[in-house]
Amino acid sequence: MKEWDIISFFTPEHYRSATLVGVGDDAAIVHFEGNTVISCDNMLEGVHFPKGSPWDKVGYRAVVAALSDLAAMAATPRSILLSITLSEATESICRALSQGILEAARHYNVDIIGGNTTQGPCNIGITVLGDVLDSGIRRNGAKPGDGISVTGFLGDAALGLKRIQEQNEDDTYLTNRFWRPTARFEMKSFLNNVKATSCIDLSDGLFGDLRHILKASQVGAHVDSDSLPLSSELLKHLSRDDAKRLALTGGEDYELCFTAPIENVARYITKSPAPITQIGTILSGKHYDITGFDFQSLSSYEHFGECK
Amino acid sequence: MKEWDIISFFTPEHYRSATLVGVGDDAAIVHFEGNTVISCDNMLEGVHFPKGSPWDKVGYRAVVAALSDLAAMAATPRSILLSITLSEATESICRALSQGILEAARHYNVDIIGGNTTQGPCNIGITVLGDVLDSGIRRNGAKPGDGISVTGFLGDAALGLKRIQEQNEDDTYLTNRFWRPTARFEMKSFLNNVKATSCIDLSDGLFGDLRHILKASQVGAHVDSDSLPLSSELLKHLSRDDAKRLALTGGEDYELCFTAPIENVARYITKSPAPITQIGTILSGKHYDITGFDFQSLSSYEHFGECK
Repeated sequence: MKEWDIISFFTPEHYRSATLVGVGDDAAIVHFEGNTVISCDNMLEGVHFPKGSPWDKVGYRAVVAALSDLAAMAATPRSILLSITLSEATESICRALSQGILEAARHYNVDIIGGNTTQGPCNIGITVLGDVLDSGIRRNGAKPGDGISVTGFLGDAALGLKRIQEQNEDDTYLTNRFWRPTARFEMKSFLNNVKATSCIDLSDGLFGDLRHILKASQVGAHVDSDSLPLSSELLKHLSRDDAKRLALTGGEDYELCFTAPIENVARYITKSPAPITQIGTILSGKHYDITGFDFQSLSSYEHFGECK
Repeated sequence: MKEWDIISFFTPEHYRSATLVGVGDDAAIVHFEGNTVISCDNMLEGVHFPKGSPWDKVGYRAVVAALSDLAAMAATPRSILLSITLSEATESICRALSQGILEAARHYNVDIIGGNTTQGPCNIGITVLGDVLDSGIRRNGAKPGDGISVTGFLGDAALGLKRIQEQNEDDTYLTNRFWRPTARFEMKSFLNNVKATSCIDLSDGLFGDLRHILKASQVGAHVDSDSLPLSSELLKHLSRDDAKRLALTGGEDYELCFTAPIENVARYITKSPAPITQIGTILSGKHYDITGFDFQSLSSYEHFGECK
């Protein structure tokens, strides 16, 4: 198919009022209140998802994974642009890919406002835009004494990916946790209410992602691995130690990890729209430890990040 | 190199005041006046530039080619994000690529505010952001009777690319027209002064790019190929007919093509910061003709768009 035929699959029929110029011009024009929040993410076949994956699932996941970065800033999502490189842009691939992308765009109430298409090795780039009235929640504000909390369950998506790689997709709870993650925009008010001092989304795994907060905030942390939120589905398939390891290093969950004064979280926790678990505390200095866990084996699940 | 080592090459030392959060958080935050203008562009090795090209030149050109879409909307450029996929991210490749990207960013006074890096088949994605106080200049406003004008010379970059492909780079004027195009932001005031009714940047070649304006505006056009601006360098190497063909179909020039009331252009033409040539007029209806040219041969230079 030609470029304009491909683009037509991804062109929405109507736009929300924030979109002044959408798909089809040299550039898109949007009008946001407050400040513009922006991020871009790329998904490569064989790196971020297994070769031969269904394109509708790839499209849905790519959009949510990109939007999750806006959720981690406590921003409101508004628009996305698509940079789609496909080795073979057949009608059926474009139809399936666009179906997944459009479903995610509808679900998160964002307009597709532009992008580009190229023929080449598969690479799905998603640029996401949102807005915040204030300066958002960054990675660099964690303070000694803050509690460290996470949303939802950790480790499910990594085991789901393993099931997909093994072509054993009976376990729809786990595989859906990989293919249909949730960008936690519903947490925005809660994060503002508890005066969250930092936030990050868990794409690479709690162990490494929390380290980004610690480095940016120049603080240390103590995490109790016995408090990690593990789903009963995960524990059905793995020993508690293996489940913890996956929760710490598996990545792919797109849950949020945030820091906030402990008393604030305690005050609002019953009003949280997503389950919240406190897993540790921020320390002064640079010490970072995780108790109840054998550190020697921390790298054992890291290959889950690649799907060659 | 690891992801954060790669990112450090592209991280600016300081930001302009519009950048509230730059590289290193989940997302960037910017504060623009007026409306946000946004576009994204991808450059693939072997498709948009020849394999084995110097990475500093690739980086410079990728940024300018992407920014050119903002110039075509009469926007002011502010920020860029980089999606860099490289098969081998060595220190020397990252140093050269970042050198070209940073040089272009400095030249156009934009901040690098974020992005991502992945290992995989080379794909350089550039997301550009700018702002406009009004609604910009689109493709859909051309009116019958308007003059059609272009900036600069056409065809040079396509011949420059051919010289590069032939590894005959003595002709620095022509090869520089490919590697170091100009995003025509200096035309912004002029375009507003002449009340330009539409504008597009010439990336695929005048013949096809003008057609985008005609389709969006639902008008026709007459172009006189004898009036196409051809550089003396181009005419040194090609017959006038071959030069015209390249000007019409070669692409890669990133000059602007715009429509505006003829009397407005005449009034302001001496104040234009770039050379302006009127090449035709907008017609009512759907007729699109180019006189002084043999249409049979129009596709003969189209392979210049690919560099395998």
